[in-house]
Amino acid sequence: VRCGMPEAVLAEGKTAAGLASIMLAHAKAIGRSLATRVSPEQEAVVRAAVEGTGLTLTSRPEGGVLILSDGRELVRTGGKVAIITAGTADIRVAEEARLVAEEMGCEVMTAYDVGAAGIHRLFPALQEVMGAHVFIVAAGREGTLPAVVAGLVDRPVIGVPVSTGYGYMGAGQAALGSMLQSCSVLSVVNIDAGFTAGAFAARIANLAVGDREER
Amino acid sequence: VRCGMPEAVLAEGKTAAGLASIMLAHAKAIGRSLATRVSPEQEAVVRAAVEGTGLTLTSRPEGGVLILSDGRELVRTGGKVAIITAGTADIRVAEEARLVAEEMGCEVMTAYDVGAAGIHRLFPALQEVMGAHVFIVAAGREGTLPAVVAGLVDRPVIGVPVSTGYGYMGAGQAALGSMLQSCSVLSVVNIDAGFTAGAFAARIANLAVGDREER
Amino acid sequence: VRCGMPEAVLAEGKTAAGLASIMLAHAKAIGRSLATRVSPEQEAVVRAAVEGTGLTLTSRPEGGVLILSDGRELVRTGGKVAIITAGTADIRVAEEARLVAEEMGCEVMTAYDVGAAGIHRLFPALQEVMGAHVFIVAAGREGTLPAVVAGLVDRPVIGVPVSTGYGYMGAGQAALGSMLQSCSVLSVVNIDAGFTAGAFAARIANLAVGDREER
Amino acid sequence: VRCGMPEAVLAEGKTAAGLASIMLAHAKAIGRSLATRVSPEQEAVVRAAVEGTGLTLTSRPEGGVLILSDGRELVRTGGKVAIITAGTADIRVAEEARLVAEEMGCEVMTAYDVGAAGIHRLFPALQEVMGAHVFIVAAGREGTLPAVVAGLVDRPVIGVPVSTGYGYMGAGQAALGSMLQSCSVLSVVNIDAGFTAGAFAARIANLAVGDREER
Amino acid sequence: VRCGMPEAVLAEGKTAAGLASIMLAHAKAIGRSLATRVSPEQEAVVRAAVEGTGLTLTSRPEGGVLILSDGRELVRTGGKVAIITAGTADIRVAEEARLVAEEMGCEVMTAYDVGAAGIHRLFPALQEVMGAHVFIVAAGREGTLPAVVAGLVDRPVIGVPVSTGYGYMGAGQAALGSMLQSCSVLSVVNIDAGFTAGAFAARIANLAVGDREER
Amino acid sequence: VRCGMPEAVLAEGKTAAGLASIMLAHAKAIGRSLATRVSPEQEAVVRAAVEGTGLTLTSRPEGGVLILSDGRELVRTGGKVAIITAGTADIRVAEEARLVAEEMGCEVMTAYDVGAAGIHRLFPALQEVMGAHVFIVAAGREGTLPAVVAGLVDRPVIGVPVSTGYGYMGAGQAALGSMLQSCSVLSVVNIDAGFTAGAFAARIANLAVGDREER
Amino acid sequence: VRCGMPEAVLAEGKTAAGLASIMLAHAKAIGRSLATRVSPEQEAVVRAAVEGTGLTLTSRPEGGVLILSDGRELVRTGGKVAIITAGTADIRVAEEARLVAEEMGCEVMTAYDVGAAGIHRLFPALQEVMGAHVFIVAAGREGTLPAVVAGLVDRPVIGVPVSTGYGYMGAGQAALGSMLQSCSVLSVVNIDAGFTAGAFAARIANLAVGDREER
Amino acid sequence: VRCGMPEAVLAEGKTAAGLASIMLAHAKAIGRSLATRVSPEQEAVVRAAVEGTGLTLTSRPEGGVLILSDGRELVRTGGKVAIITAGTADIRVAEEARLVAEEMGCEVMTAYDVGAAGIHRLFPALQEVMGAHVFIVAAGREGTLPAVVAGLVDRPVIGVPVSTGYGYMGAGQAALGSMLQSCSVLSVVNIDAGFTAGAFAARIANLAVGDREER
Ligand SMILES: Nc1ncnc2c1ncn2[C@@H]1O[C@H](COP(=O)(O)O)[C@@H](O)[C@H]1O
Ligand SMILES: Nc1ncnc2c1ncn2[C@@H]1O[C@H](COP(=O)(O)O)[C@@H](O)[C@H]1O
Ligand SMILES: Nc1ncnc2c1ncn2[C@@H]1O[C@H](COP(=O)(O)O)[C@@H](O)[C@H]1O
Ligand SMILES: Nc1ncnc2c1ncn2[C@@H]1O[C@H](COP(=O)(O)O)[C@@H](O)[C@H]1O
Ligand SMILES: [Mg+2]
Ligand SMILES: [Mg+2]
Ligand SMILES: [Mg+2]
Ligand SMILES: [Mg+2]
Ligand SMILES: [Mg+2]
Ligand SMILES: [Mg+2]
Ligand SMILES: [Mg+2]
Ligand SMILES: [Mg+2]
Repeated sequence: VRCGMPEAVLAEGKTAAGLASIMLAHAKAIGRSLATRVSPEQEAVVRAAVEGTGLTLTSRPEGGVLILSDGRELVRTGGKVAIITAGTADIRVAEEARLVAEEMGCEVMTAYDVGAAGIHRLFPALQEVMGAHVFIVAAGREGTLPAVVAGLVDRPVIGVPVSTGYGYMGAGQAALGSMLQSCSVLSVVNIDAGFTAGAFAARIANLAVGDREER
Repeated sequence: VRCGMPEAVLAEGKTAAGLASIMLAHAKAIGRSLATRVSPEQEAVVRAAVEGTGLTLTSRPEGGVLILSDGRELVRTGGKVAIITAGTADIRVAEEARLVAEEMGCEVMTAYDVGAAGIHRLFPALQEVMGAHVFIVAAGREGTLPAVVAGLVDRPVIGVPVSTGYGYMGAGQAALGSMLQSCSVLSVVNIDAGFTAGAFAARIANLAVGDREER
Repeated sequence: VRCGMPEAVLAEGKTAAGLASIMLAHAKAIGRSLATRVSPEQEAVVRAAVEGTGLTLTSRPEGGVLILSDGRELVRTGGKVAIITAGTADIRVAEEARLVAEEMGCEVMTAYDVGAAGIHRLFPALQEVMGAHVFIVAAGREGTLPAVVAGLVDRPVIGVPVSTGYGYMGAGQAALGSMLQSCSVLSVVNIDAGFTAGAFAARIANLAVGDREER
Repeated sequence: VRCGMPEAVLAEGKTAAGLASIMLAHAKAIGRSLATRVSPEQEAVVRAAVEGTGLTLTSRPEGGVLILSDGRELVRTGGKVAIITAGTADIRVAEEARLVAEEMGCEVMTAYDVGAAGIHRLFPALQEVMGAHVFIVAAGREGTLPAVVAGLVDRPVIGVPVSTGYGYMGAGQAALGSMLQSCSVLSVVNIDAGFTAGAFAARIANLAVGDREER
Repeated sequence: VRCGMPEAVLAEGKTAAGLASIMLAHAKAIGRSLATRVSPEQEAVVRAAVEGTGLTLTSRPEGGVLILSDGRELVRTGGKVAIITAGTADIRVAEEARLVAEEMGCEVMTAYDVGAAGIHRLFPALQEVMGAHVFIVAAGREGTLPAVVAGLVDRPVIGVPVSTGYGYMGAGQAALGSMLQSCSVLSVVNIDAGFTAGAFAARIANLAVGDREER
Repeated sequence: VRCGMPEAVLAEGKTAAGLASIMLAHAKAIGRSLATRVSPEQEAVVRAAVEGTGLTLTSRPEGGVLILSDGRELVRTGGKVAIITAGTADIRVAEEARLVAEEMGCEVMTAYDVGAAGIHRLFPALQEVMGAHVFIVAAGREGTLPAVVAGLVDRPVIGVPVSTGYGYMGAGQAALGSMLQSCSVLSVVNIDAGFTAGAFAARIANLAVGDREER
Repeated sequence: VRCGMPEAVLAEGKTAAGLASIMLAHAKAIGRSLATRVSPEQEAVVRAAVEGTGLTLTSRPEGGVLILSDGRELVRTGGKVAIITAGTADIRVAEEARLVAEEMGCEVMTAYDVGAAGIHRLFPALQEVMGAHVFIVAAGREGTLPAVVAGLVDRPVIGVPVSTGYGYMGAGQAALGSMLQSCSVLSVVNIDAGFTAGAFAARIANLAVGDREER
Repeated sequence: VRCGMPEAVLAEGKTAAGLASIMLAHAKAIGRSLATRVSPEQEAVVRAAVEGTGLTLTSRPEGGVLILSDGRELVRTGGKVAIITAGTADIRVAEEARLVAEEMGCEVMTAYDVGAAGIHRLFPALQEVMGAHVFIVAAGREGTLPAVVAGLVDRPVIGVPVSTGYGYMGAGQAALGSMLQSCSVLSVVNIDAGFTAGAFAARIANLAVGDREER
């Protein structure tokens, strides 16, 4: 079994019926399918369509994710991904990232809401996620947590701007801007792009544990 | 002598001759005149115009400022303003702020370039400016230093976004955005607006030392 | 009792249950908790969670604020904050600022809707808020009232752009832009950022009445 | 002789030779031609081309304007246009407006730099331009002077945003935004568009003095 | 009775109760009050509040306008305003303009939807509004009709960008941009700003019929 | 010989030496090479490099184009392209388009500067370019000429926004916006993109004369 | 019967009653009428209005289109248009384009969702639409499919940016930007502008099959 | 010797003298210093300042980089970084990335200008950089090459938008937008940010070869 990119479907902008048929096709072809940004309405339709197929549908609403599987187990690669969020409003995006990274065989350690109460929460949080090969840091509003983390760890840090905030550049643009302008070394994904962050991080973590050898 | 707002002239966009005549008028009327964002060409013309008037022209090119004075001394109010910059590229803006605050009677303490080499420079820097009533923090690129300082001191902190940086939102917009979105409590002035920052800070510092009593 | 920054929670973007548990934790730890930008749905959940805890929940819907308290009294610092709004649409933002400043021990004087009927309402309004150490001025659309006030008083003036208006730059951007470009000396907070304006102003007012001595 | 729109040429973006030939053609056909936004290089070429044609070239560099004429006199309509500027940096745009309005037969009264030293200069300035049928008000930075004037006079007021200022929206956008969002009744032309303001105002002034009767 | 600016209230962003009390105050003080951008919910509350006061409430939902009056008649000034729209989606904005201009004593002639079916509808439309002192032209999408009209008539033309359209700059920005950049001589008001257009046009029309004499 | 896309090189952003070596390589391989947006400095270097190679370098500065050729003749396809410009400032972009379309075997008919003096120049201009299979219309500022042409001809019309103009959206954005929002049926290329317009039009014209048969 | 542009009505922004009356007028005058961007509410009203008129109303909700017809058959021109979409979210826009091109007499071949599963779906897709005179390629998010297709076919390619996506430039702006910046030769229509794409493509296809001869 | 982040200085916005003294300080303290975005003027001053210090200054103008060293050799980590550019205009940014990655001990393989002549150059190019642990892909204009590469390799791909291009979003914004919106899994750095891309990639490559073991 390959630990490559999962067959993932962006549910947003698709009809529920279309989503169901894509997921079923994937699951039948390769055993698993993952959908992101799924609405409750879409989930209900997919659930009905899965009925009687023998496949298992797992809902992870905290990350807006549906997973359809024929029961085979995920290969564990040994790659370790840390996910940190500045606030609680960033958790949905973080969870999307987590589920994708797990789908790619990684172990995920999380430390959520470390920025809210000030920097003193950050050091114990970093302890909790010790040993990770790569860090995902999600932050809204001014989006500065990724740069702070990148100044403290010597692993790759991926910033995820989150569309919380209000007013000027309040839908994630200030966070995106400050991450791109950061003096710290970090790379960035799109606003709210948990999927991309998770998949990119898993690729790094899996590379770190030697998946390159097998290829 | 009042420690109010100085008669300040924004040189940018004025003819050199026009600038000279405004400054002379101010200096004759109230004894002093300060011009900001002065180009070397403008300075030369003003210098020539001042010749023989008995007034003294002081050039502070590190802040782009010219001061024309009839020799009377500035009243010292006892107000204390701290100015911190993230990098060396922010110094011109900081110096403009400093000269304005001094013009308004304040003592100014500076700690420049504290963000460049990482946060470890910040704590000794804050020691150096201990005792200030108010903090001006100038920062370009991602502009996060003001928020960090605002999390560490319990005085008012004024953020000044600086137009260093390149690429996306690189002319100070990312810095402005992250300061406005900041979870820390701070207020902001326009990009590169050293004058406004200095004058606003001086007003606070002078208020703190009791100038209100006299009014 | 310290008159520092209150433990404030930004309700927007949080689940109602999460909000309730944060507020209860704060109130148990330090006796008070304040939440801003609270929706009626969130308020209902918080109210249910508070039931039976012995804590008192005060709702201030005119400012979108909830206050949870164990009954201890707020310390009064003597700091005086004036809040002026241009129109009636700016009042919600002004009220958020007011409640935060009061939470920080200040006395708040308000003069609302002074710009609507033209400048002739402004002079009596300024009389009403006489004696304030600092002014918050909230304005939408073209957002010019803060600059006008800053030209008339010699205290620090904080501009708050408000997202009323329509059309080009109608969600507060024109107001933000005109405040940042203002020739008057003022500083600015984010669009609709009543919380930041209130906390920043209170910090100045408390500094003015000498809270620095005690520290 | 008609007092309609003059044959005006926007010099910017044209070759000097092309500009010269257009102006000559106009002047030969209808006796006069006016060019705006003329550079010194273009002026030199036009001057050479005019030599020996018997036409008169008048340069008005304070407004960036060239006028080519066969000597016939301008008809005076009796229309009266007032032009007010906030600062001295707005004068070039104002002068462009003035020359166009004069070309259309109007008498133009000006009051420049009234905003710089605060509102107390505005009332005497309005006295100076008493009797005008229409007001052009040019302002950069926060661009609020047109709205103030529109609140004081009962004639039509045309706002001209000027591209002075720096930082956020500093190239006239803040001024444009605040004029469009203004609660006062005024209409607006493009940033720096002296020509349009002058021609539009002249049309109104000429309408007021009855040019409609003749048509 | 003066034919000046009516006491007009922008209903948007106000509570229904607040709106009602402002309108009643105006109507009692000066006999009439006009509100724009009124929602059906607001109208119902105002209607209830008016009951029993002896005042008459007129609803003009095609323009989103409410008029409250004590029955005195509007003075007719003789000023004539033409209003032209490019499409049917622009009519609400045009009607707002019309009601305001009528409130200021003008006669209003309209030609709606002339751009939809191509330019051949424009010439007969201009015939219908012959004799107007001033033209308001409302257009969405590319917003070019005002410039076309300004090329055909020798009266002042006021462009009103309307927020119809979709995609890039589809909320009126393309229309605003093309009007401001127009080679034709026209002035512009904010996107959807029927009120400002109507009041500005009425001021011109009333000037044309000699209201200046009386002042 | 194929009448496909020419080997074209965008000179802007390339070193002069790099440009020369690419052009020589193309010309040696396939007999011809065309470079666009060439600066005089680059042209000099290319000219020196061509010396002694037996190839012919043709400079077309009016379109910013260099053509390097081994002397073989261009195949004429019979496709006919019309190019119309609103003003004289649009000519450089139009000429770039023309040279590319000619390079692709088309006959090009031009009518420049038809919008400057008003619509009356347009009808005779359209006569001059009668018989074209496709129209390119370049326009700056408000950019409305393409829509007007598209309303008058029943061939495909390609709009080219040009970066003339000043102020708000003055670098071609208003023109781009009004073309994209146009009710007329037209398609658009990038601001100033003469190359793309010419190549796209030639492809249509060549299709119209049956080049498809040969393929 | 002419195969020109159909009488098309943009339903968005019109009242349902207004839409019905325009469609009926068109259908009575010329036998057919097509409306785009029709909501279900509008459709119901039009359907009721059509009852008893003898006309036939066809609803094509997959493209948001209504067609009203007196039964006459569409002339087939022989023009062939290919429509390709990157994803399933682009289909509504593609269907709008298709219905318009069919209305103009063309045969339309479609290949939808070719980009979703990677480039390997593209080559068989291109086979399916072989023989087309012109290609419409609709794509959201990064919008790169049109450029890829333009590199593979030698027919004109029209890019349609679609407003799917989220985050930075996620409402079609990134797609628009990358299409306009593309090194491939393609032209572009507004975001989501299926109508314009279909009509423009049909014009090209009909030109290719010789409709020019008849004119 | 650590293979961590080099002491790097952003020369842009610094005085030449300041740059020289920072580089000398770094080189004396830790043996090496690297400066990016160095102008020829700055280089001359640094060169003079280095004279006689015994340190070696290496200039890499193709990447705008200066390296100051005391002669100690760089540790080679075995990490392998591939850098690919779409065009020749992207090379300066790529070279900056290369020099930084080499400074961090990596071997760098490059394949430049692969996108210019179409995708057929890409496959051999990928062969040339076979075996890399991580890919940097720099691209201007529409910026799509990173997504293409990310679809072909199973290593992490970092996109670098480059500010080539003209017109709408032509200073790298379209490239940034299409990279952030990409359906492929990639992460992004700021426009033109060669330094960040190189350092981020080196961190990944060094992680892949086991630098984690030593920590
Ligand atoms: N560098 C500066 N930034 C912002 N405002 C300034 C600056 N220098 C002077 N000013 C203020 O700008 C206002 C207008 O300037 P002036 O055009 O000189 O009258 C004056 O009230 C000055 O206090
Ligand atoms: N309305 C508000 N606007 C801006 N900041 C706020 C607001 N309400 C609370 N905050 C602050 O936002 C920070 C983050 O909030 P929280 O997510 O609750 O931890 C806290 O430090 C609060 O002081
Ligand atoms: N003026 C221009 N505008 C747009 N594209 C161009 C221009 N000139 C050349 N091109 C195209 O740009 C692509 C990339 O150019 P190059 O960097 O020269 O390989 C080539 O395929 C050319 O056909
Ligand atoms: N979906 C659409 N997108 C763009 N233009 C359209 C659309 N539907 C109709 N149109 C055109 O828009 C123009 C104005 O539409 P209308 O407001 O219906 O007169 C007409 O000429 C139609 O051809
Ligand atoms: Mg954050
Ligand atoms: Mg900084
Ligand atoms: Mg206001
Ligand atoms: Mg101004
Ligand atoms: Mg229109
Ligand atoms: Mg034009
Ligand atoms: Mg796509
Ligand atoms: Mg590229």
